[in-house]
This record gives sequence, C-alpha cells and structure tokens, in this order.
Amino acid sequence: MEDTIIYGKNAVIEALEHGERKFNKILISNNARSDAKIEEIKQLAKQSGIVFQFVSKDKLNYLVPEGRHQGVVAQIAPIEYIELEEFIENHRNKQASLVIMDGIEDSHNIGAIIRSCVCAGIDGVILPSRRGVLINSTVEKTSAGAINHIAVIKTNSLVNTIQKLKENDYWVIASDHHAEDNHYEVDYTDMNFALIMGAEHAGISKSLLKLADYKIKIPMLTNFNSLNVSNAAAIILFEYVRQKLIKRS
Amino acid sequence: MEDTIIYGKNAVIEALEHGERKFNKILISNNARSDAKIEEIKQLAKQSGIVFQFVSKDKLNYLVPEGRHQGVVAQIAPIEYIELEEFIENHRNKQASLVIMDGIEDSHNIGAIIRSCVCAGIDGVILPSRRGVLINSTVEKTSAGAINHIAVIKTNSLVNTIQKLKENDYWVIASDHHAEDNHYEVDYTDMNFALIMGAEHAGISKSLLKLADYKIKIPMLTNFNSLNVSNAAAIILFEYVRQKLIKRS
Repeated sequence: MEDTIIYGKNAVIEALEHGERKFNKILISNNARSDAKIEEIKQLAKQSGIVFQFVSKDKLNYLVPEGRHQGVVAQIAPIEYIELEEFIENHRNKQASLVIMDGIEDSHNIGAIIRSCVCAGIDGVILPSRRGVLINSTVEKTSAGAINHIAVIKTNSLVNTIQKLKENDYWVIASDHHAEDNHYEVDYTDMNFALIMGAEHAGISKSLLKLADYKIKIPMLTNFNSLNVSNAAAIILFEYVRQKLIKRS
Repeated sequence: MEDTIIYGKNAVIEALEHGERKFNKILISNNARSDAKIEEIKQLAKQSGIVFQFVSKDKLNYLVPEGRHQGVVAQIAPIEYIELEEFIENHRNKQASLVIMDGIEDSHNIGAIIRSCVCAGIDGVILPSRRGVLINSTVEKTSAGAINHIAVIKTNSLVNTIQKLKENDYWVIASDHHAEDNHYEVDYTDMNFALIMGAEHAGISKSLLKLADYKIKIPMLTNFNSLNVSNAAAIILFEYVRQKLIKRS
C-alpha cells in the first residue's frame, strides 16, 4: 500500500506529538536551515525511534508538487478504513451518526467536511471508492488532523451501503436544494442518521435520493443559491449540535 | 488600477452572461481547440463589443500560474469598493448586516465566506487593507460570482470602522472560541449587526474583541475544536437565517 505524506513543519510536529499515525520515515531537505522546529522534529523522531533522512530539495519538490513543504516531508501509513458492518456493530445501543459524500471531488472540501464532522461529534464518514476522491494528502492536510478522530468507511456501492444502513435502523437524510423541508425542521436528536451531501454541481445521484427518508434544504435569504458544499455540511451538522445541546440543557 | 482576471470557460461565460462587470479584454490561447464553449465566448464578446485576442499559451500560463485556465482568461475591471459612510447611509431605516474579516489570509476562505454571506442575505463585508488579503482572482473564483452581489468595504483601521458602526446603531458580535455564550443564544433578528470573524490561528485581535457587544462561540460535541473559518462563518450566518425565517412564519 502506498504511503501517505504529510508536510510542513507544524503538521509534522503535530502528527509526531499526537502519535496517532504510524510513521515510516521523515525526509528533511539537506539545505533546510536548521531551526528550532527542525530540531524539535529530529528530537521527537529519535524519541519514537522513527528514521529520518536528509534528501535533496528536488526530491521533496517531487513528493509535494504544489510546494510548501518547508523542507520537511513525513511518510506515514495510510489511514485505515473500517467496514460498514464493523461500524454498525460498534455503535449499537447508542445514537450513531454518519455523513455520506456522494461524488464530492474537491479534496479541500472533503477535508473541511471531515473537520466539521469531528467537531460536531459525528461518528463516521462514508466515501465511494469509484466516484469522488478517497483520502489523499490534501484531504489529510485540510482536515487539520480530524481524519484521525473519525471512522472512515469506503464502499463500492453507495446504494447497497444505504440499504444496509436502513435495515439497521438508520434514517437517511439527503441535502437537496429542491427539497421542501428546511434543514432545521428535522429533529436529529433521537435517531441514528446518515446525512448525504452531494457533489457541488451535480448534487446527489437520483438513485440515492430515492432512498432518502428525509430530503432537506438550507433556505436562503436571497436568490443566490450557491453554498460551498463544506459550508452546507457545516450548517446542517451544527443545527444537529444546537438541537442536541438545547435538549440536554 | 490593475486588472482582475477570471479564467476557465465556464467562469468567463457566466461573467459575460451576467454582465455585472466591465470587461477589458478576453485572451484566448491560439492553440486552444475551438469548441462550443470557446465559440460561445466569442459570440457573447462580439455582442457586447468586448475585444478578444489570441495569445500564446505561455502568456496565459504566466497570467494564471496555478494553471487551469482552459485556454481562456478575461481581464475585467476590479470590483469597486464602497465607503463605510455610503454603506451606512444606504441602509438607514432597514435592518443591516455586515461581516468583518479580521486578518483572514486564505483567499479560498474569503471567497467562501463572501459566498455564504450573499446566500444568507448579508449586506456587506469589511476587509482590512493592511492585514489579510483583499479581493484577488482566487477570491473572485471561490466566491462563485457572489462578490458581485454584495457591498465590499475596505478600511485602514478596523478599530475606527467598528467604532463608527457602533455610533450608528450597529451591534458588534465577535466569534471567539473562548466566549461563554453560544452563537444560537443571540437574537439576530432585530438589530443591525456586524459579525467579526478572526484569522484561523490567531483569532480576533484583542483591540477588536474589546469593542464587541457580544462574544459568541460555536459549541462543539467533542474536544476537537478546530472548525475551518469559512465553515464557522456559515454556521453563524445560517443560524441568523433560521431565526429570521422562523420569526416570519
């Protein structure tokens, strides 16, 4: 399996400190000026028995074509996906929540959605293996570490996945701007739910929309109806948080 | 004044169709395969008397270093900023709302926030001229055209701006994760407000926090407290939308 990379001094330090991911190797540019952070990285690597190696800047540029590696790239083990069955089993007898990404292609959006999911206490995310994007370095970076705090499930068939969720007492909610009901009209606090977010332009596939128990929209105050998908996800997820906290208090 | 550029076939077609911005020139790569969209661009340009010109691909690559211009770059007039006094005058005798960006540096976040503002019916955004980023091509692109539907104010001093807003009967709300009150505990429906969003890591400057009438936080359901700033803005703005629509109904 291919390594995942993380890059940039702060990102590497954070990952070393949190210790959630297996490091394979840390590559440091041999013309990086040695500063406090590079020293800290070397120190932390030594403490954890992680190999570090000095390489040419060209090699780092090759690994991070978009640049901004700041002279440090870490090769880490890819995240571990979990099976849907295992997720369902782990969450029996408590309220469980999932976000399903249907064909979302922008890695920044996937990372930001995962970040919001973790803040909102969502238990897992589901990504299709064929359409859209799986977890890559950009998703890792944009998630700001959130990817290590949530179950990630990949599936060959979102239809089968959703059917299995429904059989296991999950309510399926589709975010669809043609829907009649407003997102805040659903009571999210008392059910297992899976929220489907669709691709920015295409929206949710028809075959999935048909399976939804609720279709909800985010109402706008103008005719300009064009939220970024990660912002749309955040709005719905934090309406769930609001309801949950109000119910508790 | 420097031109702003927009690029990509769809973005250029949209801008031509909406006709909200003055075009200076459209540059088309002389080795772009002529397809239906390129033809449409030429047609629309002719109809509006806009000059188009064939240039080398290298010139386009130079104008759009990050690539993805798809052979079409349009040079358009920069957006027109408006003065705070004019904004205040235009919005007397009706509820007015603003978002202030304090040192937000990522152009994608600024664009996404502007997009959410327009969807939520916010009347204007305020950007500092010295810290942070003003409107550039990335902001234009990420805003998905929203930038043309909102008043944009730039200021040399956010402190002075906020003081002037307070004198003119605006309530100043600061999003601060150390705050005690939850964002949904404020009633936004009956006041002029200016919501301050801070930079991702540094948060809102102390000098501005001191001027705030309300400090609010977005409560999390986990200890992972790290929302992307554009997602945080969307959550608060659409709580305002929710309150407003519930009050109307």
